[in-house]
Amino acid sequence: MWGGRFAGGPAELMREINCSIGVDKRLWRQDIAGSRAHAAMLKAQGVLTTEDAAAIDAGLSTIADEYAAGKLVEDPALEDIHMHIEHRLGELIGPAAGRLHTARSRNDQVVTDFKLFVRDCIDEAVAALAELEDALLARAEEHAGSIMPGFTHLQSAQPVTLGHHLLAYREMAVRDRSRFADARARLNESPLGSAALAGTGFPIDRKATAEALGFDRPTANSLDAVSDRDFAVDYLHAATLCSVHLSRLAEEIVMWASQPFSFIALPDAWSTGSSIMPNKRNPDAAELVRGHSARILGDLVSLLVLLKGLPLAYSKDLQNDKPPLFDAHDLLMISLQATAGMIRDLTFRTDRMRAVAAAGHATATDLADWLVREADVPFREAHHIAGRAVALADERGAALDELSLSDLQGVDPRITEAALGVLSVEASVAARRSFGGTAPDQVRAAVAAARGSRQ
Amino acid sequence: MWGGRFAGGPAELMREINCSIGVDKRLWRQDIAGSRAHAAMLKAQGVLTTEDAAAIDAGLSTIADEYAAGKLVEDPALEDIHMHIEHRLGELIGPAAGRLHTARSRNDQVVTDFKLFVRDCIDEAVAALAELEDALLARAEEHAGSIMPGFTHLQSAQPVTLGHHLLAYREMAVRDRSRFADARARLNESPLGSAALAGTGFPIDRKATAEALGFDRPTANSLDAVSDRDFAVDYLHAATLCSVHLSRLAEEIVMWASQPFSFIALPDAWSTGSSIMPNKRNPDAAELVRGHSARILGDLVSLLVLLKGLPLAYSKDLQNDKPPLFDAHDLLMISLQATAGMIRDLTFRTDRMRAVAAAGHATATDLADWLVREADVPFREAHHIAGRAVALADERGAALDELSLSDLQGVDPRITEAALGVLSVEASVAARRSFGGTAPDQVRAAVAAARGSRQ
Amino acid sequence: MWGGRFAGGPAELMREINCSIGVDKRLWRQDIAGSRAHAAMLKAQGVLTTEDAAAIDAGLSTIADEYAAGKLVEDPALEDIHMHIEHRLGELIGPAAGRLHTARSRNDQVVTDFKLFVRDCIDEAVAALAELEDALLARAEEHAGSIMPGFTHLQSAQPVTLGHHLLAYREMAVRDRSRFADARARLNESPLGSAALAGTGFPIDRKATAEALGFDRPTANSLDAVSDRDFAVDYLHAATLCSVHLSRLAEEIVMWASQPFSFIALPDAWSTGSSIMPNKRNPDAAELVRGHSARILGDLVSLLVLLKGLPLAYSKDLQNDKPPLFDAHDLLMISLQATAGMIRDLTFRTDRMRAVAAAGHATATDLADWLVREADVPFREAHHIAGRAVALADERGAALDELSLSDLQGVDPRITEAALGVLSVEASVAARRSFGGTAPDQVRAAVAAARGSRQ
Amino acid sequence: MWGGRFAGGPAELMREINCSIGVDKRLWRQDIAGSRAHAAMLKAQGVLTTEDAAAIDAGLSTIADEYAAGKLVEDPALEDIHMHIEHRLGELIGPAAGRLHTARSRNDQVVTDFKLFVRDCIDEAVAALAELEDALLARAEEHAGSIMPGFTHLQSAQPVTLGHHLLAYREMAVRDRSRFADARARLNESPLGSAALAGTGFPIDRKATAEALGFDRPTANSLDAVSDRDFAVDYLHAATLCSVHLSRLAEEIVMWASQPFSFIALPDAWSTGSSIMPNKRNPDAAELVRGHSARILGDLVSLLVLLKGLPLAYSKDLQNDKPPLFDAHDLLMISLQATAGMIRDLTFRTDRMRAVAAAGHATATDLADWLVREADVPFREAHHIAGRAVALADERGAALDELSLSDLQGVDPRITEAALGVLSVEASVAARRSFGGTAPDQVRAAVAAARGSRQ
Repeated sequence: MWGGRFAGGPAELMREINCSIGVDKRLWRQDIAGSRAHAAMLKAQGVLTTEDAAAIDAGLSTIADEYAAGKLVEDPALEDIHMHIEHRLGELIGPAAGRLHTARSRNDQVVTDFKLFVRDCIDEAVAALAELEDALLARAEEHAGSIMPGFTHLQSAQPVTLGHHLLAYREMAVRDRSRFADARARLNESPLGSAALAGTGFPIDRKATAEALGFDRPTANSLDAVSDRDFAVDYLHAATLCSVHLSRLAEEIVMWASQPFSFIALPDAWSTGSSIMPNKRNPDAAELVRGHSARILGDLVSLLVLLKGLPLAYSKDLQNDKPPLFDAHDLLMISLQATAGMIRDLTFRTDRMRAVAAAGHATATDLADWLVREADVPFREAHHIAGRAVALADERGAALDELSLSDLQGVDPRITEAALGVLSVEASVAARRSFGGTAPDQVRAAVAAARGSRQ
Repeated sequence: MWGGRFAGGPAELMREINCSIGVDKRLWRQDIAGSRAHAAMLKAQGVLTTEDAAAIDAGLSTIADEYAAGKLVEDPALEDIHMHIEHRLGELIGPAAGRLHTARSRNDQVVTDFKLFVRDCIDEAVAALAELEDALLARAEEHAGSIMPGFTHLQSAQPVTLGHHLLAYREMAVRDRSRFADARARLNESPLGSAALAGTGFPIDRKATAEALGFDRPTANSLDAVSDRDFAVDYLHAATLCSVHLSRLAEEIVMWASQPFSFIALPDAWSTGSSIMPNKRNPDAAELVRGHSARILGDLVSLLVLLKGLPLAYSKDLQNDKPPLFDAHDLLMISLQATAGMIRDLTFRTDRMRAVAAAGHATATDLADWLVREADVPFREAHHIAGRAVALADERGAALDELSLSDLQGVDPRITEAALGVLSVEASVAARRSFGGTAPDQVRAAVAAARGSRQ
Repeated sequence: MWGGRFAGGPAELMREINCSIGVDKRLWRQDIAGSRAHAAMLKAQGVLTTEDAAAIDAGLSTIADEYAAGKLVEDPALEDIHMHIEHRLGELIGPAAGRLHTARSRNDQVVTDFKLFVRDCIDEAVAALAELEDALLARAEEHAGSIMPGFTHLQSAQPVTLGHHLLAYREMAVRDRSRFADARARLNESPLGSAALAGTGFPIDRKATAEALGFDRPTANSLDAVSDRDFAVDYLHAATLCSVHLSRLAEEIVMWASQPFSFIALPDAWSTGSSIMPNKRNPDAAELVRGHSARILGDLVSLLVLLKGLPLAYSKDLQNDKPPLFDAHDLLMISLQATAGMIRDLTFRTDRMRAVAAAGHATATDLADWLVREADVPFREAHHIAGRAVALADERGAALDELSLSDLQGVDPRITEAALGVLSVEASVAARRSFGGTAPDQVRAAVAAARGSRQ
Repeated sequence: MWGGRFAGGPAELMREINCSIGVDKRLWRQDIAGSRAHAAMLKAQGVLTTEDAAAIDAGLSTIADEYAAGKLVEDPALEDIHMHIEHRLGELIGPAAGRLHTARSRNDQVVTDFKLFVRDCIDEAVAALAELEDALLARAEEHAGSIMPGFTHLQSAQPVTLGHHLLAYREMAVRDRSRFADARARLNESPLGSAALAGTGFPIDRKATAEALGFDRPTANSLDAVSDRDFAVDYLHAATLCSVHLSRLAEEIVMWASQPFSFIALPDAWSTGSSIMPNKRNPDAAELVRGHSARILGDLVSLLVLLKGLPLAYSKDLQNDKPPLFDAHDLLMISLQATAGMIRDLTFRTDRMRAVAAAGHATATDLADWLVREADVPFREAHHIAGRAVALADERGAALDELSLSDLQGVDPRITEAALGVLSVEASVAARRSFGGTAPDQVRAAVAAARGSRQ
């Protein structure tokens, strides 16, 4: 395919290192779509005859059917998916196949294919995120009033509602969707027609091919277009951050399923056992989701490092753009789906959560707040008083809300009976009605608002 | 500041590992702005008296003046910038200072400060990008018609115009700005009022503080708000990709300044010498820009890794969020400014570029295209014919456009005298008039369009 | 310092991006040591006169005293630590200072300094690791027989001894020391005398300077010597893996201190409180250790990325080698020290650990093993029988060792009274006497062996 | 295989995320080797009967033959390679297969397999490095006296010999081998017998299995043994740094093959062409080697991130350890082989190199050195004089060695006719005879020493 200049063929090892069909065959749909759009445009512009264009289109359609039926036969000598398809087209329609490559190069062809593929990845990720959000919203609504310990530093901090906790992950998913949407909008310019690097002298219509392929417009600079892989980095950034969010939730699932927590039970469908220990029920899916994020992060690093310091325009290093992206996308999709499945199917042990929430003097802040509000104590001083009450409770081996009024008044005489009312976990969560706060009615309002925004 | 529960103080080493004032003092402006907005809102809501609010505001204003005058004294015992300011406020206005922390926590305070800081970083980066774009546009316009070799695989591929080459970097800068703008829009929700993690029972007005601080709206979930650092990752992603773009340009500057290329000359202002070799003129700034991108990339990795697997809500690990961001921002800003400076000041050796562009048979594609266009040869066959012409030129030790018509007709009889007209580099670039192509008039149109879009 | 070729001076921004004194001043001790060794060798070789050599040595000694007393004044115009020292030497001894740079270049000078510095970092890290090992061994010996739940997948798996658990981290520390030792051995070749890149024509004695600086030998290739930063990457690799190990222990400290686990209590000296919640006792040091590993990892990435694709020999990109190394070393040292401190000072709640160890049917494997050993049941079948016993216990809401003999015989009649004896956690750990196993006597033997190997 | 506790089966998606046979089938040889060693030991210890042990060994031998013949049939329900082999063994020899898993767990089994695999990877990498070194030594010897420009900052600095330049890469390869050797030594402890996490009560002989599998000794702590993946990180570190070295050489190959350099010509066997440009000869293999290093670096990051923060002992996250290692090893091996092939086969254009070496006043340092040596000028002053000579040459548009004696004496009267003798590139390289310097005789000595150390 490199034509008349080459006398000798490549070394065996050269062929091997250069061959990418094992990887880029995943682009066949996109490659055929791009070629059909290119051929149709060439016909409209008078570069291809109607007959040639029709033969090319029919041939490509046949190849699409063949590949969809699993009949792609990998031939290392044909190097990549583009050559496989062009070669097969030649077999099917003869020399006219050689006219398809007019006014384009593999450089603009491969980046067009890859952009189309990444755009599909984005759409799939966004759809999977929506499923995860649905699962989170449903469980959040169900548990809008269920009380659990809120942790900071993994120390019991203040009681919160389980619904509120689940909605925190929904917020991350919303940002993830927004990040994918931004990546899609920035990606959506067509590089087709940039040719090798400099554009072409043929009278092509780049707007026509852009439109046919669902792009918003053609790219503005041919040198940039063939060497740009920002869109794949943007995807990997969104995927990495999304998977980091999933890993945070997975960390909690693993911890919550652990015997000392026992906040949740995973059904058999989401548990595995051990080859040696008959007692085990392991949260493998959550651990794998957490682990997958490490690999997706590594994929992002790979692509960024690949691009650093590369001069213009296309360099062959860029052939290494696809393995990290394919790997990350596969890992992200199964992570999203498995997380949604676990959220839907797991059992929350709300009694256990409620019991832990009440331990650790988690309403000490409420006592301090009461002092500020009702006794006009500056917060810093109120904080100190509540701290001494906590120390007293510890000394007694009691919970803060088990101290008597006289105990508390011994700490500070401004504490009255009314203060006792704020020390239950129910009172505590109910009080936190600031916008975005953990109170059950805030959670229900947030679920309703979330559903509204999805209409 | 942790109040009444603690009997013993921290170990010396504990104090040291925990102390962040050396780093987070950079947030003082943001911290004071956040506190003033918070206090004003508390007053409006009746939580603070008018007197206390006025004292607090005046005190904060005084502190701002002091810090602007360089009078911040670091005290390790005060741990972080928040405590430094609150402590100084207490010195200035007495116990009323203790009322400022009503209805907030360091958790929502620090994330508010950090968001305000990152927002400023974004604005600075966008402004520096605009300067770089101006420099690129000016030099691109100047060299819209200057011919240079276009490389793929760093092999002479087709002649292009220098202006076109420079505009490729302008396209990257446009995407960089767009990426920063997306990050800014996603960041711009106020976490203030999320308190420690659960919201607060005080009757606060989060919309008021959001508005006062230039945020679009308050965040929707308090647990998410205090543990979210997505905005910093989004910044670092945009900064990394931007610096990767700069590193590509820097790679070219380094290579172009090298004797074998000699495409550019750097003025003394952007060159350094050697302590041992009197002959040296080194492009240090370009090398440093290329090197800085490695560190910015490492900063992105640091923050992503930091977040992975962290349970909700705030964990102290997050204190490590600021060093990578500060480091990356400083490196990015100087990289952007130095790159703009070099682009403005360097000399392009266009005669040398033109000479190299003509070597390497760079118009072979034009011969193939001519065969397609004028002799109706399928592109694949035309490519093969042109390849044989290249091989013949090599054999003769001649350039492709030095072959005689009879030589060329020996390769393929369909080649006519008209074909000779497409073999000059000037004809080649002039022909590539497809949208986004390298032809001088396309370049001038692109510069004009770019200027238009900046109005 | 670049001499006679330069007419104009650097741009202000050029000066700023190029200036490294703020960072590389940390190398002053190493720079002076290197210069003294170089001068002594030049004298011995007859390149310097005795008088000049004495003046240089005395001058450098004076500068060392000044810097040790904090009198280094940073001057951006002098760029780096090498120029600061040479300039100050000129002030002190006059023109003879200009003879010190004979037969060397900043290129070999800076890599010599940096190698000496990294060698010191290694020695410091190894010493800190030894302290951590001592702490682990002491607590492991104390708790050789304390029973805790052994987790896999964070699910209770089999009971283990706390001493055994702590010794797992000692194994990691042993590997860490070995990794640092390997890095030190590979680093320990002297680049001094490689000059700019090509060696020198002066009759230098590289073995003499190598020996004077504690290197094993001179490097074998001058081009490699000035562009090699492998030694810093090796350090960062060892530091990253060490910090990853610390992060695993930190993760356990954070989790174990959490109320649902309550396996440990941190003393006030290693706890912090909250600005809002009077009840909090946070394990900040452990969280910071966990977080620091993210930054150290990012530092490793920075340096690897920096080196990728750099042509020979020295490029200015390499000036970015020091910030990641300095950052990582500081973070590693405080992480090691804080971890050792926490291990020494924390309280293990062994009663709580023992209680959790007994939950979760953790001795089910012992039942299966008993069936294999005493009833000749193939392991796979025995595993299945024990699994059914676990299911029965779950059904009954009982622990496995609370099932009656007749219950167990209902599961499989081959189970006899003797089997009941293996179901206690004490019996379980005592049985695991295979080499490296968790039995208390194995743990005591391992502690003794560890102490022996440290003699 | 998880036995009697599980009522329901896994969800379809759970099965999919959990299934690793597609990846870990590469471990089949190691798994069978480990099982045979385990069974032989169990027989020797009296845990297995002679008959059962013989049946197991024969069955495993049969499976090895089947797999070597490509008859491994992947069954997702069997999850991983361990279950595939155990299941097939059951088909071949019946219930006795169930006795093989006595006294071990998948946790120690998988880490044993993986260690054996990584050890093989190390041995393969070391062998490939030796081939590369041979290629470098051969070409270095051939070009011990060929003169080329030595670059720093990619600016012509001083002339060097091509042989010297190639030997710089040989030094890196030597360090790479040393790094792999260290990794191998640290890896070489047998985890087999650590069982699930706690060791076992069966009377196993861990030294026997360690010896049978070529390990130096058994690991000392079972909890560490099943959760340790340091050995894979050590491999990836060595692989990453090795690939970074290859990327530096690849960068030079790409640049040297570029028309403006034209330092080398790649034969057809190592070149590729273009689908559009008939004139192209691209150094794809070198670009891919450079690109592969980005992916290997990403693989290292993936594994480090995976391990961070994981509590003891085994967590399922660790299943993600193999894809990065397999990927990196494949990429490293082909990179090493392709680099060796290119070095062997490429043509050095020494005339072109020699011509460029003479440009850029590359012997200015020699003039300065002459002034120090012969006229007792302090180096700093000599440097300044030589710099003025360079400026004069530039003014005249001449090379430094084309200046007349009177020109030079106009710069400084101490310059005599003898000085002219040091200004040729031949004199310059010949003078640099310091150990490790670039003089041809130093290069020949270095090649001889290298060959000696390989005996």
